[in-house]
Amino acid sequence: MDQPLASRPGSMPRIDAAQLNADIEATAHFGGAGNGGVSRLTLTPEDKAVRDWFTARCLELGCNVGIDPIGNLFACYPGRNAALPAIMTGSHLDTQPGGGRYDGILGVLAGLAVLRALKSSGLVTEHPLTVVNWTNEEGSRFSPAMFGSGVHAGAIALDEALAVRDHTGISVGQALEAIGYRGSYVDRQAPAAYVELHIEQGPVLGAEGIAIGAVTGVQGLRWFDVEIEGTESHAGSTPMTNRRDALTTAARLILDIEAIGRAHVPGVLTAGHADVFPNSRNVVPGRVGLQIDMRHPSEAGLDAMEAALRQAVAGQADSRIERIWAKKPVAFDPACIEAVRQAAADCGLSCRDIASGAGHDAAHMATLAPTAMIFIPSRDGLSHNEQEYSSPRQCADGAVVLLRTLLELDRRLA
Amino acid sequence: MDQPLASRPGSMPRIDAAQLNADIEATAHFGGAGNGGVSRLTLTPEDKAVRDWFTARCLELGCNVGIDPIGNLFACYPGRNAALPAIMTGSHLDTQPGGGRYDGILGVLAGLAVLRALKSSGLVTEHPLTVVNWTNEEGSRFSPAMFGSGVHAGAIALDEALAVRDHTGISVGQALEAIGYRGSYVDRQAPAAYVELHIEQGPVLGAEGIAIGAVTGVQGLRWFDVEIEGTESHAGSTPMTNRRDALTTAARLILDIEAIGRAHVPGVLTAGHADVFPNSRNVVPGRVGLQIDMRHPSEAGLDAMEAALRQAVAGQADSRIERIWAKKPVAFDPACIEAVRQAAADCGLSCRDIASGAGHDAAHMATLAPTAMIFIPSRDGLSHNEQEYSSPRQCADGAVVLLRTLLELDRRLA
Repeated sequence: MDQPLASRPGSMPRIDAAQLNADIEATAHFGGAGNGGVSRLTLTPEDKAVRDWFTARCLELGCNVGIDPIGNLFACYPGRNAALPAIMTGSHLDTQPGGGRYDGILGVLAGLAVLRALKSSGLVTEHPLTVVNWTNEEGSRFSPAMFGSGVHAGAIALDEALAVRDHTGISVGQALEAIGYRGSYVDRQAPAAYVELHIEQGPVLGAEGIAIGAVTGVQGLRWFDVEIEGTESHAGSTPMTNRRDALTTAARLILDIEAIGRAHVPGVLTAGHADVFPNSRNVVPGRVGLQIDMRHPSEAGLDAMEAALRQAVAGQADSRIERIWAKKPVAFDPACIEAVRQAAADCGLSCRDIASGAGHDAAHMATLAPTAMIFIPSRDGLSHNEQEYSSPRQCADGAVVLLRTLLELDRRLA
Repeated sequence: MDQPLASRPGSMPRIDAAQLNADIEATAHFGGAGNGGVSRLTLTPEDKAVRDWFTARCLELGCNVGIDPIGNLFACYPGRNAALPAIMTGSHLDTQPGGGRYDGILGVLAGLAVLRALKSSGLVTEHPLTVVNWTNEEGSRFSPAMFGSGVHAGAIALDEALAVRDHTGISVGQALEAIGYRGSYVDRQAPAAYVELHIEQGPVLGAEGIAIGAVTGVQGLRWFDVEIEGTESHAGSTPMTNRRDALTTAARLILDIEAIGRAHVPGVLTAGHADVFPNSRNVVPGRVGLQIDMRHPSEAGLDAMEAALRQAVAGQADSRIERIWAKKPVAFDPACIEAVRQAAADCGLSCRDIASGAGHDAAHMATLAPTAMIFIPSRDGLSHNEQEYSSPRQCADGAVVLLRTLLELDRRLA
């Protein structure tokens, strides 16, 4: 079919912004910290409580709910044509310790808001519409992060994920059984498209006063360790000219790192961790270790930044660098990105393209299906933080754009 | 009397370099680490063993040995005129954990070598000659450092020092009683002069190939804490231009600190300690604490350095500085310093004036009596380190200069 939205059966669906906000309030009680923050680590009793709440809401709406063997929760709302693959949206309900009430949660609850809007309006999509809650996006209890979507996309073996243990020795399999979320559902068909709404976790949209980010992909990432050797010596009796001070060398390198980041926009380069040895006020530092995080939307950009970083390290005496991890950039589907831009425009909301600096389940889903993400502003760019905040208006704007995007994809892909 | 040395009764005394070296070897077994290093914290069983050994050697030579209430050990070798105050030398037999066999020990054993030289030659000084072993120079078990000489010089109250506890809760008083070194000797008369031989604990003499340092005083010291505030944010999603990275600000300040040190020779300025928060690779640092050590031989030099440091901190956004400790410079006695220079010249040894960067018991003694110190080179400037090393030749040179200096002061002050 190729009818315009307004001409389809049923009235034009509308997001209930007040109900979405009430849902955010309601879920923030599961693991709520009393100060607006949430600590709801994956597969804990708090996580079970929010999963139970979400399942009940989905069943009320008439969804079929399935739990797969890694605990991913699929709520499927029927469309007109059961033979079509689902269009999928969702995110995650787990949080960091001392986390907020929006990171991940908004994407799941906005999916629920979309289903409510469809039900209220009577509009029936061609494709089934699935809202998913991915297990362990955050990775703070079980490593690696995002293994729910990783297992679903075939990037991580189920057995390996089930065997991972937390710091108390409890395995993922045991934790799933303990909360009753080790299921057997198999989501056999790759979705027709996947769209995830999320807070930006950065300051760009807020600083520019823009309502919607059309996410073009997830930046590639490379991690480096740098070791700088000096000579530990007495701070009182070693003249300035006789020193091999590893911390002053590190300081030069930290400023080089900042300059390299600034020279490779939209890349970012960060020395977030420094260990000084022996780290004693009256001892000239004999060794410094730096941990470096590099991100760029393109491999070519990462290569250029890495070359500049290696040159900077080579320019400092007695420093060596090692790359310890790399993740390639993920580019989202151009048609899905365009659907997001178009939906924002249709709603009269300002929109800009933006690359995600953080990883998301959508990066795994992009290997299975045409994928995009929608960002809304986060106040001061804060996330993984009890102060994390997006206004009810901003959350509703995101949900409206999500709804429009899903309907547009439903129309185009049918 | 004013006779030249050679004309006094008895032959010219000579240091037995081999015996001095054998004594260094012998004492290094008490708390010996098996790799040349020594761990002999104050008032431990190892410290008792070396004290017992030293006491036995002094008694063999005919000294009167007295232990005062803080455990300082005074070995007094009689002179011709018992009414005169003693000329005093010495240092300390305690070490840092993982320390060396020279720091402090050389000064005590060289005093013993001087007494042996006198006894062998038959030369009798006018003044009594006292060799002292000060309690707790190092301060690694009980704080503050140098409280043995501090109590003796009246800078620290005896009761306060006795009440200090180590990290296991044992007080100084208990530790003294446990090893049998809580005495009642009172050294009533300030000495006529105090001269301490010590390793340099810095690289200057070694780098310049000079045998003897005539120590002009102990540098003054000021300690500062600096706090730099940034904004903790996500390393992946915060563009370089939107960051308030506390570590890059700290890096600029660390380089300023190095430049200020270099601009204020012979002063030294060190950022030895840095704490980064949250110190996570993928988080832009939100706060950095720096601990700074400043030293200069003059108050005016310290004032100039502090002004430059405060200006540098004021030049960085969101940084604040606090001075947490200050110790004034100590100037040694010009006549005593000149006696050291003269003794080195008489022995045909190269000599330069040098300020001590580290603290020493001599700084307390300078408030009681005309005082000087003699430095010999330390290999690579290492101390508080198992690799600490001065050659038998360098140690013997120091002892010979100590002997000459003490005899010259005996002659001049009689």
